Amino acid sequence: MRAVDIIRKKRDGHCLAADEIEAFVQAATHGHWPDYQLAALLMAIVWRGMSAEETAQLTRCMVASGVRLDWADLPGPTADKHSTGGVGDKTSLLIAPLAAACGVYVPMMSGRGLGHTGGTLDKLESIPGLRVGLSLTEFRAIVERVGCAMISQTQQIAPADRVLYALRDVTATVESIPLITASILSKKIAEGIAALVLDVKVGRGAFMKTLADARQLAQSIVQNGQANGVRTEAVLTDMDVPLGLAVGNALEVSECIAALRGHGPPDLVELSLELTARMLVLAGEASDRATARAKAERALASGQALEKFGQLIEAQGGDRRVVDDPARLPQAKYTQTLHAEQAGVLCQMDAEQIGRAAMLLGAGRDRVDDAVDPAVGIVLGVKPGATVGVGDALAHIYYNQPERLRQATDLLRQAIVVAEQYQPSALVLETVGG
Amino acid sequence: MRAVDIIRKKRDGHCLAADEIEAFVQAATHGHWPDYQLAALLMAIVWRGMSAEETAQLTRCMVASGVRLDWADLPGPTADKHSTGGVGDKTSLLIAPLAAACGVYVPMMSGRGLGHTGGTLDKLESIPGLRVGLSLTEFRAIVERVGCAMISQTQQIAPADRVLYALRDVTATVESIPLITASILSKKIAEGIAALVLDVKVGRGAFMKTLADARQLAQSIVQNGQANGVRTEAVLTDMDVPLGLAVGNALEVSECIAALRGHGPPDLVELSLELTARMLVLAGEASDRATARAKAERALASGQALEKFGQLIEAQGGDRRVVDDPARLPQAKYTQTLHAEQAGVLCQMDAEQIGRAAMLLGAGRDRVDDAVDPAVGIVLGVKPGATVGVGDALAHIYYNQPERLRQATDLLRQAIVVAEQYQPSALVLETVGG
Repeated sequence: MRAVDIIRKKRDGHCLAADEIEAFVQAATHGHWPDYQLAALLMAIVWRGMSAEETAQLTRCMVASGVRLDWADLPGPTADKHSTGGVGDKTSLLIAPLAAACGVYVPMMSGRGLGHTGGTLDKLESIPGLRVGLSLTEFRAIVERVGCAMISQTQQIAPADRVLYALRDVTATVESIPLITASILSKKIAEGIAALVLDVKVGRGAFMKTLADARQLAQSIVQNGQANGVRTEAVLTDMDVPLGLAVGNALEVSECIAALRGHGPPDLVELSLELTARMLVLAGEASDRATARAKAERALASGQALEKFGQLIEAQGGDRRVVDDPARLPQAKYTQTLHAEQAGVLCQMDAEQIGRAAMLLGAGRDRVDDAVDPAVGIVLGVKPGATVGVGDALAHIYYNQPERLRQATDLLRQAIVVAEQYQPSALVLETVGG
Repeated sequence: MRAVDIIRKKRDGHCLAADEIEAFVQAATHGHWPDYQLAALLMAIVWRGMSAEETAQLTRCMVASGVRLDWADLPGPTADKHSTGGVGDKTSLLIAPLAAACGVYVPMMSGRGLGHTGGTLDKLESIPGLRVGLSLTEFRAIVERVGCAMISQTQQIAPADRVLYALRDVTATVESIPLITASILSKKIAEGIAALVLDVKVGRGAFMKTLADARQLAQSIVQNGQANGVRTEAVLTDMDVPLGLAVGNALEVSECIAALRGHGPPDLVELSLELTARMLVLAGEASDRATARAKAERALASGQALEKFGQLIEAQGGDRRVVDDPARLPQAKYTQTLHAEQAGVLCQMDAEQIGRAAMLLGAGRDRVDDAVDPAVGIVLGVKPGATVGVGDALAHIYYNQPERLRQATDLLRQAIVVAEQYQPSALVLETVGG
């Protein structure tokens, strides 16, 4: 089977056979093909797409390129949540302890932030001492003991994805539904979970800008997850506006602790409970969504989820005292408040621009190997729909590098629009496979 | 200017700016981009195509990647002919001496055969002693003295094309009109010629199987040649059937010598005179095609073209005596004749299958670095339209490896069809830019 023949077949719009896809994934994993042939095939896939069967086989081969965890000896079901990435999206930090408190085991492998979107690992690492680079043995022990753990993808998990993703990033071949589907799912399937809830972000701050694109990705992942034996459901949620009020690593952890204490911003709490409830039903831990929702709400109100979060921090080497004293989290040297210059209704907060402003301050990274500053970021003073008077606080900026302030403030001013009218939008837009 | 941004732009169907195309060609020439980014962009170009302006700029930059010869000090005009490749297509060996005998200088850089199609260099090298790997200094001296020379592309000519072609060959990105256009023209423009006649082969034995594809390529090359200051014309000619009777290197040289002595197969002689006449007009050496044609016919009939061919062989180190004694060319050890098994009209000779049969015998190569056997090949006994009786000679097979004979004979039997009716087709199908 020659690489050039497989590339030509896809280039000409044909479906690849199972053994051809296997040869491609093996070649990526073991370096059997030169990178230029992998790149040519990736671009041909962006061009011609892949059928559901091809995508399922691609996913299967990518899972098989590494180890697949097995949780059969746990006394409860396993599940996970994955988000396609947004601004201020810290639901993982709430959902994992919430689900664990309800009896569902959550072995979560997460990623880092890139560009204007944040990453769960960066947020977690703002907690002093906390380690995300655990071995699979440590990971397994913590999941068993606490009910949840959150680590970075290890070398053993879907190594083919690591090679292909690095190549896609530099060859403009990221934007392909089948390739995104296989990349996301191969890692989640390798986690060994029985159920997956996918949160597909849609809007200005999301990777998917339109509902149509988001729906297509959601359908592809749901179909392909089911084809690979994982009960999968997708929820399309709004990302025109940041989720919650905090954008920035320690600031978001602090907001999560407040939420676990019952003082979270309504949109963040609502989405976290909703996604947790769906996970419980999908995992078989609740018979219907109303029951599941009540269970999740109890876990929150009773403090059990907060307790789980504390246990997770401690198990992963972090300073558990932050849960009672968030001031122990890294603090920025300076703060500045952005005030409204006109009265009206706050009608727009461009999530991408706010994400970019936070990145500029050092909360995010432009390139994969940049470091992030855990302390800096933005806390919004209001959300769309709020009535604003002249001088009201629109946002608080936390920063360490004064020379970055001006540009970040300019971006924020552009992002936040006060006008006379406001058209509210729903948080959950639609669901796929539910 | 980042490679990934240029790739993304083409992937999304936009036209690349002049400086982006220049960056790409420079990167290919000097290795500034990794091969996987070149490959991804090539596949995106196959997908999205290129505008006339983009193709002209690509060609210009590929020419500029190396040296461009200058023939301003010659007393006559320069011109060349290029063929997209066929089976039994040995017109270059006739046209170069014919045009030189008529006062047009022909500095021809040619290629080798690949797959079922032959290459001018392989044919020439069957002449004992003849060298095609001349330096540009030797090349210039022979063109000045003889009026024509035929060499392989040197390292200094369009080095970007060498890099890109090698990459296209292994990434299934050969089949793209703009990439083919730029590849062919960059080498011809770098020759420094004022006029170019392009022979686009169409049909079973050609790279372009349909008239529509061939027309598109012809139009692209004519338009782009003009845009780059070379008077360019294209002729679409039939390649369902081999040209002439001989297929195989020394056998084809022998046929050319016969043709230069006035005993050539009609189709070969006709096409060679026709293309030469067009070159003479385009180069300004004749006012109209009738005059040019008469001039070319005189050069043939008078023996002046044969004399030029002898001079060329001698100047390039070959044994000139082959012109008077073709038996000095390499001879195969064995011959076998394929006889007709039924009577009728010879109605089809599949050029591709006949080319493959010759390749099997050793006349051609499957991979770029395979050696060829100069002596072996096929000489057809008849051409389509001929009436055939049982036992008539359809083809003579010249071979050195008896174990290859069976398979070659089988291919020939499939290729040559005798039936009750025959629909003749024209040799020259249409012209572009004439």
